[in-house]
Amino acid sequence: MATKIPQPALEKREDGDILERCRGFMCSPVTDARVLQENKGEMRTKMEMLIMETQAEFCKALEEVDGGTFQVDKWQRKEGGGGISCVMQDGKVFEKAGVNVSVVSGYLTEEAAKQMRSRGKALKGKDGKLPFCAMGVSSVIHPKNPHIPTVHFNYRYFEIEEEDGSRQWWFGGGTDLTPVYVNKDDAFLFHNTLKEACDQHHPQYYPDFKNWCDRYFYVRHRGETRGIGGIFFDDLDSPSQEEAFSFVKSCARTVVPCYLPIVYKHLNDPFTQEEKAWQQVRRGRYVEFNLVYDRGVKFGLATPGSRIESILMSLPLTARWEYMHEPAEGSREAEMLEVLRNPKEWV
Amino acid sequence: MATKIPQPALEKREDGDILERCRGFMCSPVTDARVLQENKGEMRTKMEMLIMETQAEFCKALEEVDGGTFQVDKWQRKEGGGGISCVMQDGKVFEKAGVNVSVVSGYLTEEAAKQMRSRGKALKGKDGKLPFCAMGVSSVIHPKNPHIPTVHFNYRYFEIEEEDGSRQWWFGGGTDLTPVYVNKDDAFLFHNTLKEACDQHHPQYYPDFKNWCDRYFYVRHRGETRGIGGIFFDDLDSPSQEEAFSFVKSCARTVVPCYLPIVYKHLNDPFTQEEKAWQQVRRGRYVEFNLVYDRGVKFGLATPGSRIESILMSLPLTARWEYMHEPAEGSREAEMLEVLRNPKEWV
Repeated sequence: MATKIPQPALEKREDGDILERCRGFMCSPVTDARVLQENKGEMRTKMEMLIMETQAEFCKALEEVDGGTFQVDKWQRKEGGGGISCVMQDGKVFEKAGVNVSVVSGYLTEEAAKQMRSRGKALKGKDGKLPFCAMGVSSVIHPKNPHIPTVHFNYRYFEIEEEDGSRQWWFGGGTDLTPVYVNKDDAFLFHNTLKEACDQHHPQYYPDFKNWCDRYFYVRHRGETRGIGGIFFDDLDSPSQEEAFSFVKSCARTVVPCYLPIVYKHLNDPFTQEEKAWQQVRRGRYVEFNLVYDRGVKFGLATPGSRIESILMSLPLTARWEYMHEPAEGSREAEMLEVLRNPKEWV
Repeated sequence: MATKIPQPALEKREDGDILERCRGFMCSPVTDARVLQENKGEMRTKMEMLIMETQAEFCKALEEVDGGTFQVDKWQRKEGGGGISCVMQDGKVFEKAGVNVSVVSGYLTEEAAKQMRSRGKALKGKDGKLPFCAMGVSSVIHPKNPHIPTVHFNYRYFEIEEEDGSRQWWFGGGTDLTPVYVNKDDAFLFHNTLKEACDQHHPQYYPDFKNWCDRYFYVRHRGETRGIGGIFFDDLDSPSQEEAFSFVKSCARTVVPCYLPIVYKHLNDPFTQEEKAWQQVRRGRYVEFNLVYDRGVKFGLATPGSRIESILMSLPLTARWEYMHEPAEGSREAEMLEVLRNPKEWV
């Protein structure tokens, strides 16, 4: 990879006292605040604080534009850890908005550990079992107005301890946009905000992770991407843990500036019944991707003890499947399909 | 298995001339009628005639109750064979009704051949390739009124030729009902009609295939069956090809008497917005089963050259996902869930 670009000093929030910072969260964190305070230098703590902060920032920004309030559910996983699910349903602006944090720990078999990484590295555990910790924030927002796009993001961190006590760790994540109609200005703003965050860390991050996103969010049986992409990455374990975390932090901090300006811009756009119907058809495709291909959903549904309601909160409140739906040539619906069939460069 | 019960002579339709019988179909069959005529003694021909007849009978019965007309699409598969998809969308009674026939042939790898059978027998092909033929009729009907249940059926036949020229063949199929509310009379009529058809052939068929149905249509991540079941079987290759076909024919001929009386009974039942909303939530679960677990859908989506619109016509026109939806204790919605969580005997 090429030259690393120095990054600005945006670290203010992290200087604060942990207990103080926890007061701004949607609810108390999964790990007891005093435990976090005691281990404030550890990556697990830094990441848990980041995902809680991201959830709070995003939820508050959405509540402000909608006027509604998130339902906050704190849940525990009997095998270890738990999560905080924030859902707003049938609001003024948002049909369904979910922002979920989970912090899970326990033991993995060697087979399961191998499957957790997209590159599938083999890991050696004590008696075949490996202590692990997985945490992340993920969100899907489905607005009512078909001129406001759906957004999804997810930022996550994994740690696995091998037999010899050494720790494997990596980050993954991404943010992607699923509009119902093509709007080049929105697409530029969204991608450019992500690109600027990426460029602070490495000039190859945006182009590489933009392509990865187009490949990952692909509904193969339709020959269409789910939306107009964004960035997606996994197995990020370089150049150092601190620098990888710093990159993830930059990404997590774009979720509000990436999306909220687009929401405000289209808040009062008028729309027709036909535009609403096309949004419903696109939501059907969203469901197809999430249930058939999404690795997180598949992993979640197959994992005993996982919280189904939190995994499936990504599904829209309503969706539609029309037999042989094909937009008229030259229509704005056909323009959208064309972009989904041939991903574009937006910046 | 126990005593075989003799079956009534219901074979009238099969005495007719093939070309004459084809006139009653929704459109000309996939295999040219003259080819069928020339091979009228072969099982492939008998089964293709049966699935075409079942499609026509069922479609006509639905058109009569709805007043609408099926859109008929005949399609070809470039690798060999094709199908006929009949869909009625947004009718007076039916929100979406699909009845699909497909007759597909070509070559399978040994691996694919093994996967086609639920018991996964190993088969030996010439240079690793096995000529095969697969055909079936399948249907899913989603009515508008929440007091009319959704029905699904599928009857299919496979043939694979091994290296030594010997032919492996088997039948599969089933019919199952997915109501929105429990109605014991409907459940009895539906199951009893299936039981009577099964009992003509073997006293163990109904109990065995009823249990298989409850196990197959299971949404594991929800801990619920998709509906109140019916029958389901696969790999049926005994006691003889003729007798197995005769059983499948009896089943295929129940699709109208199983379902249409229930449709007529509830045609004008009044319903509330709450009942409609519960129907939409149940449809969301239907989508979850079909996209996450259904073997036919998974196989179809992963098969290059398959017709996606015909595979996914089983999805409802509309569906809904509500976060943390839980019916009130003692409600009719809770009664339905209870039955889905603990499958019952209906006859």
